[in-house]
Amino acid sequence: MTIRFEVLSTDGAARRGRLQTPHGIVETPVFMPVGTQATVKGLTPDQLEEAGARIILGNTYHLALRPGDELIAEMGGLHRFMHWNGPILTDSGGFQIYSLAPTRQITDHAAVFRSHIDGTLLELTPERAVAIQENLGADIAMCLDECPPFQAPPDVLREAVRRSLHWAERCRAAHRRPDQALFAIVQGGPDLTLRSHCAAALAAMDFPGYALGGFSVGETPEQMVAVLGPAVALLPTHKPRYLMGVGRPQDLLAAVMRGVDMFDCVLPTRNGRNASAFTNSGSLRLRNACHKRDEAPLESDCPCYTCRNFSRAYLHHLFLAKEMLGPTLLSLHNVAFYCRLMADMRKAITEGRLADFAEVRLARWGGSL
Amino acid sequence: MTIRFEVLSTDGAARRGRLQTPHGIVETPVFMPVGTQATVKGLTPDQLEEAGARIILGNTYHLALRPGDELIAEMGGLHRFMHWNGPILTDSGGFQIYSLAPTRQITDHAAVFRSHIDGTLLELTPERAVAIQENLGADIAMCLDECPPFQAPPDVLREAVRRSLHWAERCRAAHRRPDQALFAIVQGGPDLTLRSHCAAALAAMDFPGYALGGFSVGETPEQMVAVLGPAVALLPTHKPRYLMGVGRPQDLLAAVMRGVDMFDCVLPTRNGRNASAFTNSGSLRLRNACHKRDEAPLESDCPCYTCRNFSRAYLHHLFLAKEMLGPTLLSLHNVAFYCRLMADMRKAITEGRLADFAEVRLARWGGSL
Repeated sequence: MTIRFEVLSTDGAARRGRLQTPHGIVETPVFMPVGTQATVKGLTPDQLEEAGARIILGNTYHLALRPGDELIAEMGGLHRFMHWNGPILTDSGGFQIYSLAPTRQITDHAAVFRSHIDGTLLELTPERAVAIQENLGADIAMCLDECPPFQAPPDVLREAVRRSLHWAERCRAAHRRPDQALFAIVQGGPDLTLRSHCAAALAAMDFPGYALGGFSVGETPEQMVAVLGPAVALLPTHKPRYLMGVGRPQDLLAAVMRGVDMFDCVLPTRNGRNASAFTNSGSLRLRNACHKRDEAPLESDCPCYTCRNFSRAYLHHLFLAKEMLGPTLLSLHNVAFYCRLMADMRKAITEGRLADFAEVRLARWGGSL
Repeated sequence: MTIRFEVLSTDGAARRGRLQTPHGIVETPVFMPVGTQATVKGLTPDQLEEAGARIILGNTYHLALRPGDELIAEMGGLHRFMHWNGPILTDSGGFQIYSLAPTRQITDHAAVFRSHIDGTLLELTPERAVAIQENLGADIAMCLDECPPFQAPPDVLREAVRRSLHWAERCRAAHRRPDQALFAIVQGGPDLTLRSHCAAALAAMDFPGYALGGFSVGETPEQMVAVLGPAVALLPTHKPRYLMGVGRPQDLLAAVMRGVDMFDCVLPTRNGRNASAFTNSGSLRLRNACHKRDEAPLESDCPCYTCRNFSRAYLHHLFLAKEMLGPTLLSLHNVAFYCRLMADMRKAITEGRLADFAEVRLARWGGSL
């Protein structure tokens, strides 16, 4: 068994679980910081671990283009290449082809697209997506899927589900690595009938884990939340459930309450680079003049390296002076914030008080469940 | 006594010493990484310490402009503001006015210049230079000096020495902080008669430490080394001697052999950001394609975080992908390289074999003493 997942306790639809992988155990619900190009931007692996990260995500599309998956395999795989010894999940590249690559063309055979780096014409088949991910050697690989916008017309969504199912079968057939789990992705946009069909077909193929795809691609938070509950309920209960690319702290709360176990999102690092800090009282824009003489840390009760040692005044100065340390320290705090939020949710689930916990947080953040 | 300096042993003109400061003891000869804007670019204080840095430099000119020395004083001083608990030396701003500020005008009263940030017209008197540095609160402050290019005409050099001596007296008279040592700066370019006059006049004022200024401003390494020996010999033997702004590893070797105790230079961090690594076998350009598949660390015997954990192939990838972690990891290695070089020199002095040590290193680096 490559991975093992057990649900330790539940609180409503929410689950407190444990995911065992070849590179260690992950407590769920869990947030995975995004390490697109074999690095979580601005942070060393030591800083990542100190921030509380236990599993990270790598992007197949980016890594296959640069430095190349075969080079990474030669270097001993992605874990060794980037010196991250914990678990890694790699996406399949499908989403990036939609969001980054110009002039793409998708047939049942493959996705054909131009590299966003040098314009080279490239072809990604399900078999190649699996081969790349086997070269990268993550603990968890994802099936190649077609990922249209949430609001795409019904026939586009239907065609994407048909093709994603076809590709999932081919991915499963191509997948060889015994020390890697292959997860499937449920598409269907807001159409629950379509999602139900997709989820049932994938469940019949018995993957070790299931992702919800097609979220965070153009819908409003309200539209997402409206579909999320029934969409999660379509997934097998004894397998890990991963909501791809979502999202804001309030989105994570809403999704955990509906039974999601795993998340990834670029927000903590991207916002950190842009001088925006997540806190339990809402966001702070560190470039704002109000922080110029503020001796307080970002959050007084945050145990992260940034909050233990630096004032808002100092962080404000770093961003105004365009110093690299600003993005680093803020990314570190934001990743720590996300990881602490997940730890707090895990505790609340164990203690059967997730709804209360969520209510208090959302009152501060101004969101709704 | 604010600082205490003792020479523990000598090897030719070279000295192995110990500098006691309000923020701890520094073994000399020592290299001070440059933290221009209250941060050594790209590194956290923890990373700096792990790289072996024990004392760092802050730039008075930059900090007075942004965030302002009064703000830093309000925040508890530079140590607390940037969370560096070891000793700090601040320069006086004289060199930056020469190298950065447009439309400067220098009279005996003050240096008048425009801010390189917003063009504001500013005036720096010796008294203001001291007041700024007292606000910053470094362990060691520097007198304001006039710093013409090494190759300036004789009358310009003479005038700069006259004015620097006048300013040194005013700095000494203005300086109040009992927990801060004020060092004087000897100017005079390549003119040893002028340097001798300057050094004698400053020695008569009995400063706790002396710097050699006017180097690293336009001369060739050979020109510097030719003047360095006699220039160092003009300084009091029982006080620390600081060669400002120098330099390359081979320059540090040559200067230590001539009796210099302290150094600062932006090279390790600037070159690190530009993908250039210092090693005992010479420089490595990490963007070069030859590193693409190189599993070796930058240096196999370097104990720094970068060399313990990352390959040249990975660093090459980070620079090609324009990832922040590349500059951080290379700056960390370069600072560690400089600190290790100084530690090796200290050991060689204690063991009376600095000349042999220098010969072996220079044979690899292609320099001469």
